[in-house]
Formats: sequence, C-alpha cells, structure tokens
Amino acid sequence: MIGILGGGQLGRMLALAGYPLGLSFRFLDPSPEACAGQVGALLVGGFLDEKALSRFAEGLDLITYEFENVPVEAARLLAERLPVYPPPLALEVAQDRLREKAFFQGLGVPTPPFYPVDGLRDLEEALGRVGLPALLKTRRGGYDGKGQALVRTPEEAEKALRALGGKGLILEGFVPFDREVSLLAVRGRAGEVAFYPLVENRHREGILRLSLAPAPGASPELQKKAEGYARRALEALDYVGVLALEFFQVGEELLFNEMAPRVHNSGHWTIEGAETSQFENHLRALLGLPLGSTAPRGHSAMVNLIGLKPPFPEVLKVEGAHLHWYGKAVRPGRKVGHITLRRDTPEALQEGLEALSRVPGLSLEVRR
Amino acid sequence: MIGILGGGQLGRMLALAGYPLGLSFRFLDPSPEACAGQVGALLVGGFLDEKALSRFAEGLDLITYEFENVPVEAARLLAERLPVYPPPLALEVAQDRLREKAFFQGLGVPTPPFYPVDGLRDLEEALGRVGLPALLKTRRGGYDGKGQALVRTPEEAEKALRALGGKGLILEGFVPFDREVSLLAVRGRAGEVAFYPLVENRHREGILRLSLAPAPGASPELQKKAEGYARRALEALDYVGVLALEFFQVGEELLFNEMAPRVHNSGHWTIEGAETSQFENHLRALLGLPLGSTAPRGHSAMVNLIGLKPPFPEVLKVEGAHLHWYGKAVRPGRKVGHITLRRDTPEALQEGLEALSRVPGLSLEVRR
Repeated sequence: MIGILGGGQLGRMLALAGYPLGLSFRFLDPSPEACAGQVGALLVGGFLDEKALSRFAEGLDLITYEFENVPVEAARLLAERLPVYPPPLALEVAQDRLREKAFFQGLGVPTPPFYPVDGLRDLEEALGRVGLPALLKTRRGGYDGKGQALVRTPEEAEKALRALGGKGLILEGFVPFDREVSLLAVRGRAGEVAFYPLVENRHREGILRLSLAPAPGASPELQKKAEGYARRALEALDYVGVLALEFFQVGEELLFNEMAPRVHNSGHWTIEGAETSQFENHLRALLGLPLGSTAPRGHSAMVNLIGLKPPFPEVLKVEGAHLHWYGKAVRPGRKVGHITLRRDTPEALQEGLEALSRVPGLSLEVRR
Repeated sequence: MIGILGGGQLGRMLALAGYPLGLSFRFLDPSPEACAGQVGALLVGGFLDEKALSRFAEGLDLITYEFENVPVEAARLLAERLPVYPPPLALEVAQDRLREKAFFQGLGVPTPPFYPVDGLRDLEEALGRVGLPALLKTRRGGYDGKGQALVRTPEEAEKALRALGGKGLILEGFVPFDREVSLLAVRGRAGEVAFYPLVENRHREGILRLSLAPAPGASPELQKKAEGYARRALEALDYVGVLALEFFQVGEELLFNEMAPRVHNSGHWTIEGAETSQFENHLRALLGLPLGSTAPRGHSAMVNLIGLKPPFPEVLKVEGAHLHWYGKAVRPGRKVGHITLRRDTPEALQEGLEALSRVPGLSLEVRR
C-alpha cells in the first residue's frame, strides 16, 4: 500500500492511475472532505500530528506527497521509517523561493535576477539592481498567485513590503517573457529519466487556466535545453518521481521560474494525451518499475475548471473532450475539475477549443 | 450513486472510468473478495436475497450489471424501484442460447444452424439436420467454454448429451470459420448509437486469449454489416449501454454467435486504444450523456492474463504496454488481469507482441 500525504485531486488521480497496477492507497489530509477519500482510504489528521503520522505509516510500503506545502519535518520523520519519494530535500528546496532560485542558479540554469528582502533597506538595494517593474514575493507559502505583488513604483514596493510582512521575502526582476512553459520530468529509482514535451501554460489571476501540449512551435533545441536543465536538478536532488519545472520563455531562452516536486496541473493532459500519464509514471518511478513512454498522442489542451461546474452534456458533446470532475464542492477560485481536449491535429484542436469556449460558463482565451 | 450488480473486474473498470465523471459506485456481489470492492463500496449479498437487493438499491440513482448471469428476477425486481440498464429483457435473451439465437434469426441476422435438444430423439433429429461435427451446449449458464462440447461422432454426441444433463440443450452446426470477431456497440437513452471497430478474437480452451483491434484486414463493408446487425438488436431491445456481439467470420459473411449485454472482455483495449473507453461510454449511455468518440488510436492488442501473474517490470518495459491487474488471487484458468499493447502502426504492434511473448509465463499466439 502506498501512502500519499495530501488528499486533493492530485492524490485522487494518482490512485486512479495506480489501481490498474494492482496498487492500493491511503491518504493523510487534515480535511475529512478531502476528495481523494472518495476513491481510497482517508486518514484525517494534521501533517504535524506525530500520532496521526504514525498511524498513517502503519503497514505502508512507501510514501509520496501530492501537496508541496507538506511540512518537511513530517516528510523527514516518515523517511526514518519508510522510503519517502520524492526525497524530502526536494520539498525543502521547493518550499523556499530564495533557496529554490539559488539552487537552480547554482546548477547553471538561468533565472530572473533575484535578491532576498528582509527589510526596507534590502528592498531599496534590490530595486536598485533589478529595476522596475519587479515582483515582491514571500519566500514561503505562496501558491496560485497568492503571497506576491507586482510593483511598478518605489511606493508600491514599500506598500507591498508591509502587506507581505516586511521580511522573509524575495524581489525578482520582471521578465517580459513571450510565454510560460513547463517541463514534466520523471526519474526512476535506478536513475533513468524521461521527459514529456514542453507545455505552454496560460495563467489568469495567478491561476493556471489553459495548457497546450505539446507547446505549439517549441523547437527541438528548446526541448533539449529544458531537458538539460531538468536533468541537472534531478541528479543534484537524487530525485525519484515526477518533477515539474516552470520556465519563462524569452526568444529561444528559458529562465527558471519555479519547481513542483510532484505531479503537476500542467501535466494533467497526459492522462489522455500521452502514452503514459504523469500519474502512472510517478508511481512507476516510485516502485522501481520501468518508466512508460512519454510520447504525446496528437495534440491536447487542458482547461481548468475554476469555481464552476459546467453543464456536463455540453462539455462531453465536444469531440475529444474528456472530463475530470474532482468531486469537490464548488467555491470561487477553487480548482474543481479539468477538461482535456485531445485531437489529432493542431487545427482540429483549435476547432475543438472554439467549441468548448461556447459551453456556458467556460470562457477560454483560445487566441494565441 | 450508481449500483452495479456484480463486483468483478468489469465492475472495477466501470468505477475507474466513472470517477473522473464525478460518479460514485456501490457493488452487490455474493463474495466478500469481489475485486471491485477494492475501488468502491461493496455490499456482500446474494442476487436473490430480497433484503440484500433492497439495501443495495437504497439511495442509488440507477443500476447496471457487469455479470450476465445475474438472475433476471433480481433485475426485474430492482427495475420496479429504479432505472435498470441495459433493460432486463436483454439479460433474459442473453441467458438462453436458444432464445438468443432465435432472437437474432428473427431480426434477419445469419446464425449457424441450431435446434433445441431435450432428449435423445431431439438430438438424433438435430444431428440429421446440422451434420457432424457439431456443438452441443447447455441453453443456460455456460461461459468461457464451460457447458459445451464439440462432438464429432454420434457416440460422442450421446455421451455429451448425458454429461450436459440430457435436456435444456441446443445443438449448433459447426461453422468452419476464418476467425472470430466481435463488435462493441453502444446506445444512449435518447436512442443514439455508436460502434467501435470490429475486433479479432483468439480463444484457447474456450477462453479469450488475445484481441486485435481494429481487426486486421476487416473491410469497411464488413464493419457496416456488423453495425447493421447490431443496430437491429439495439433497437429491438430498446437497449441502453454497451452491447457486445460475437460473430464467426466466413469470407465476407458474419454469423451471429453470441451477445453479452454489458461491457466485454474484447473491449478492454478501448481504455488506451480508443478515444473513449467502452466503460466510459457505457456510463455515458446510462446517464443520458453524449456518447464519446469510438475512434481507435493506432493499433491495439489485448492479452488476457489467465491464471498467472507475469513479472510486472518485464511487461512494462515493452513500449506501449499497459498493465491492468485486477487485484484478484491467482487461480488456474482465472482471468486476473490483462495487458493492452497500443502502437501507432500494425508493424510496431507486431514487434511489440513479439517482445511481450518473451515475457516469462506469457505465451502468445502471435502468428496470424
């Protein structure tokens, strides 16, 4: 039995990918409503509750996590008893934006300029170096656009400094990027690696709305560059499992933005759009099984359902549309499902997206 | 919540296909070991236990079945309270080989010659009409080659008559067929229909071993013929859900052999090999949702795992191989899993099959 820290939709989809391999799952989540509990055993408990962790670990073969804000202490505690993949070090690096960027910089991977900010003086110095506009972010705890501010003037920067707590921050230079892309990489227990094709991601209000896979127009050189960066990180972390890297694309350059040491929203298209899904490959990697082919099948788009339940018949009547409803209550801004649209050609995909954009409630930015 | 009569692998795969649609499932099965219980709520009870049926039905939205020997009485009883799909009439027809063949004959669908046999005199008369060799089968309860005998002489026929109980039998002419093919059809609640491509099936000892999809070399005319036959049956039964029809192919002719009013082993390849799986389309049909595309994705082979657990790493290292392990105890002759091999071309599929045939324990008849 595999234990998963976190019981959200990522855990749910891991379990659905694992049942055909004959696996079973137990989730630990503080919420009794955690949607993975609908498809596997849910233990309700806090990640820092030692008794809950101990009960959770009982009888498991190995542990993984689907939530990147799992406390590193919890992962380390469990790792004393059982294999925990990806390694807790990856969690630790990913939870601190400063450490994360420094880590990639240390690997020779380009990043936007960044400086730590622990007060007004740091802020002024950093602004002097990166210029305006810039992004002020908390080092820890941010997700989906929370815990950060785009600042265009010194006054805005000072205001953001106060709003974000005055310290434990990082200032990043604003990169006028062409687009955001991500790479899903996977590394097995014996060190073998595989990469999915680059994905183009479109965000609104800091939340991923639409992914296009493979990323239209991405050159083989760009793919190789991304894979090379990912390979360095996988090896430096002695990583096992799926790792997601987000980049800003500027011309033929890639600037590292952030990593997620887990299966990732920008890889949901792989369920229908690739030979082997990111969920299955994560599990294969953890179990020491051969990795599955990451080859795409045609062209896919992934549309997040955020705070809305579309009329299912309208979605499903679109050819090649596959619905994933997570079984969560609908609340504003909450990811409650996604749609993958898979077609054989980019033209058919575009037509399908236009059909989807006519579904009541779904407004897609389908133009490039 | 959807209720499923039967908790075997078909129920398990229905649930796994239904979770992404936000559905939940309850199974009724006499065995506490029923493998669908690993992925959904299992109520242990007999199909003829009225109390169990009543508890099972409590709070369900609709009921389907995954086991074609569910007693028709149970289905009819439940149908008084809730929608039951496919209609119990289909179950009734499918459970009696004589009625089944007569039903298709009545629709103008060719069948091998057949006669009811309820004693020695019937047997002699029937043998006089269909000749030898012939097949003597029980009208009810047979599956996977059980309850039938191939007879080559009058003496063998008499012996088989006694072995099979002396009455309630059917004698069928032996058709020297080129191959066995099956058609998976699906009909929605509003009467819309869709068909998967014909599948070639290879049996050994009466059990399906290997399916090839689409059936190599099947002409568009043959596909149309099969679809026409299926359409007649779907309409005559006012059918809702997936219906599997098995045929003998003789040249460009198809002779109806048997039907299964449920998702079917020869449709397992659709999980990876078609745009929408038979399991999802069965659920879509039941729920009145639009049917999904039945278009194949490349070329697939489905290999049943019968009474053996192959070494998983050896299977999964074959490119395009997808493992489905049902979580059942391995026993001789028992279907405990399947492998779908999906590739883009027939040549690559053949290569993949050869690689699979080298997996310890897996002996495939890969030659045509």
